[in-house]
Amino acid sequence: MNAPSPFATRVTAQLPDWLVKELPRYNVPLPTAEDRVRLVNALAARNYKEGNGGPFAALVVEHSTGEILSLGVNVVLSSCLSSVHAEVMALSLAQTRLGAWDLGAAGGRELELVVNWRPCTMCYGALVWSGVKHLLLAGDGPECEALTGFDEGPMPSDWRAELKGRGISVTSGVLRDEAIAVFAEYGRSGAIVYNARGTGSRRQD
Amino acid sequence: MNAPSPFATRVTAQLPDWLVKELPRYNVPLPTAEDRVRLVNALAARNYKEGNGGPFAALVVEHSTGEILSLGVNVVLSSCLSSVHAEVMALSLAQTRLGAWDLGAAGGRELELVVNWRPCTMCYGALVWSGVKHLLLAGDGPECEALTGFDEGPMPSDWRAELKGRGISVTSGVLRDEAIAVFAEYGRSGAIVYNARGTGSRRQD
Repeated sequence: MNAPSPFATRVTAQLPDWLVKELPRYNVPLPTAEDRVRLVNALAARNYKEGNGGPFAALVVEHSTGEILSLGVNVVLSSCLSSVHAEVMALSLAQTRLGAWDLGAAGGRELELVVNWRPCTMCYGALVWSGVKHLLLAGDGPECEALTGFDEGPMPSDWRAELKGRGISVTSGVLRDEAIAVFAEYGRSGAIVYNARGTGSRRQD
Repeated sequence: MNAPSPFATRVTAQLPDWLVKELPRYNVPLPTAEDRVRLVNALAARNYKEGNGGPFAALVVEHSTGEILSLGVNVVLSSCLSSVHAEVMALSLAQTRLGAWDLGAAGGRELELVVNWRPCTMCYGALVWSGVKHLLLAGDGPECEALTGFDEGPMPSDWRAELKGRGISVTSGVLRDEAIAVFAEYGRSGAIVYNARGTGSRRQD
């Protein structure tokens, strides 16, 4: 629909072509936590080199079997949208596939968000509203911000308890060193840090 | 592009038809804070009655002139996406229009996000990453959650100072009673509260 006005009426974000081409190979389950985190670490490492956005990737999987419902990477740069972090993409793509805004109502299956580090403030909130029941992280310490220069935003003082109180479990510390190695490599690369501060490209650290 | 796999590769959210039809009338500036909040209160009141999502609306305007860059409403229900709150829609539509992920780099203009209540945790983060320099709210107290039944999520202990430290001003308490009246009406309506908890439709309060 073309609106007879200067206003945009539709928002679209899509996975990069390199990932779309790889998707058929991911139609197999990832039984262990290590399998799942290994994949997000690998996708994160490739994503920034391809120029789509930061070194972040996420999956939505069925918690018990590891069936992959969706894969997401950060596409802030390629989409010109500051909100399409990896977690928002993975959650939104799973909801698009299932036709459901509540992933907690998805056929009685418990779904899990897998990320290569603790989500930023925005994605932390997005996780809460999505309906996933489990969060699996490579890690959650200050290393990501320190090594990449990204501001991950202010978090509530007890972010784990706030999730637990809403029925969401947290597992962290799986292939942590491998995740940190990606951030360190990113930090040395001079890639764009897209935290908006009116600069568009200047590092914050 | 059709992916040869079961995975979704693209996320799309759009404004509802009723709002698209009204857009030409909003191609005029809103000089005062009251003008701006009056519009989001009115759009919020209509939005839930049309069935698109919750009673929330947002604008991105030029802070000094009130020129409207984008209008957003909550389209969680009509899009089947839990992340497309009014603020995310308004910010993303402004970025789509300008072709820029950083609204702080938009031609030297300072942009403002206008919302009919304090953003939830997710939208609070989305605001920080968007590049807007000002936040204008009808209000920010517990009334929204108390009257509507929505969980707005855990916030950092000093959410205003965290914004100020990132160069974002906050103005709150403009047409506050009118905003509360919309939430009260919504609360009495029995409309869907879409905080995901595996229920899909049950009220949390």
